[in-house]
Amino acid sequence: MDANILFRTEDLEHMEQRFRTSFINSLSGFKSIALIGTMNPEGQHNLAVFNSLVHIGASPALMGIIVRPDSADRHTLNNIRQTGFYTINHIHSGIYRQAHQTSARYPENSSEFEATGLTPVLLTAFPAPFVAESRIRLGMELADILPIPLNGTHLVIGKIIHISVPENCICSDGYLDIEKAGSLTGTSLDGYHKTSRLERLTYAKPNQSVASVELKYRS
Amino acid sequence: MDANILFRTEDLEHMEQRFRTSFINSLSGFKSIALIGTMNPEGQHNLAVFNSLVHIGASPALMGIIVRPDSADRHTLNNIRQTGFYTINHIHSGIYRQAHQTSARYPENSSEFEATGLTPVLLTAFPAPFVAESRIRLGMELADILPIPLNGTHLVIGKIIHISVPENCICSDGYLDIEKAGSLTGTSLDGYHKTSRLERLTYAKPNQSVASVELKYRS
Repeated sequence: MDANILFRTEDLEHMEQRFRTSFINSLSGFKSIALIGTMNPEGQHNLAVFNSLVHIGASPALMGIIVRPDSADRHTLNNIRQTGFYTINHIHSGIYRQAHQTSARYPENSSEFEATGLTPVLLTAFPAPFVAESRIRLGMELADILPIPLNGTHLVIGKIIHISVPENCICSDGYLDIEKAGSLTGTSLDGYHKTSRLERLTYAKPNQSVASVELKYRS
Repeated sequence: MDANILFRTEDLEHMEQRFRTSFINSLSGFKSIALIGTMNPEGQHNLAVFNSLVHIGASPALMGIIVRPDSADRHTLNNIRQTGFYTINHIHSGIYRQAHQTSARYPENSSEFEATGLTPVLLTAFPAPFVAESRIRLGMELADILPIPLNGTHLVIGKIIHISVPENCICSDGYLDIEKAGSLTGTSLDGYHKTSRLERLTYAKPNQSVASVELKYRS
């Protein structure tokens, strides 16, 4: 406790802008990072790294991302609005530098796939490109866009309609071992981390200690 | 690619419910986990583990959590609505089992602090308890609650008004080294992981390769 330092609202207001952005972005903890693939009605591909994925619900299967319309996110948002579909692709240690590179402000008519060397995969009747190099790939159908009036961002919610995952990472109880699949996590705006599982824990009940759950793969 | 298995919407519908919940909860990637501390108007403390923190914005400093009113989250939501304040406390390897234990369905009149042995810290004029054992502790003022009509959950957004962090984890450019502070990340409903930084990367620009950023601590 003694080695901690305290910041209040007025301290934040006096911080240099880039310092504050990096600092505040650190506080929400480890982030869920992924590449979002989209296509515009003319067939132009777009790929952008996001660090704001959030689970919304399991039934129906819903996932959200926070989108900033004043940033490089705007091409992604425009494409999702127009086509109604997008892909979410996990990032592993072999592609995180390319993933980060997609955050550069490329012009609208250039593809981040070409710029970074990642490979688009197109499936019949799904109007958004997947990332071939990614090991966990989700096909999403736009379900809702909720404006966040406080700062002009949006919560974009999609329904998961297509799931491609490594078969040897699925446990018999449904847990998908994304660490075994090599998925990374992010910090602030630019940190990339691999993980090491401490343990899974049993469902918690009052007056009963939680215990370790051994991972049993389905195959 | 060949070792991947594909699931579509109809496959999800046929999954056993707990299998699907664990599986779908795995797909959003590594989760930002934290303990949320609240108090009801009578002074009764509540502490609950959440795995859905998401950065909303840096200026103003806003953070969101997804709350399920039909779950153990409802005490947290009720308290936030009534007092307008809550705390967010990062979880390290010394307290993750206790953090997980807070997800048990304790009755409303019992404190998860007492049940798990974690220590509440009260600050003058802040009506929500912090977790003494946590190394990164945020005081939040409720800013907005956005209903998510798709599944009855809520996006609860708070303004960060109090930040207590280890001084030796702050970098000169504002990056807070939450890995050095021991913060953990989560998977699905019950996985806890420590992390290992691959690197930080420079701000991406078109036609320029990203490079490694060395961490320089302020003290």
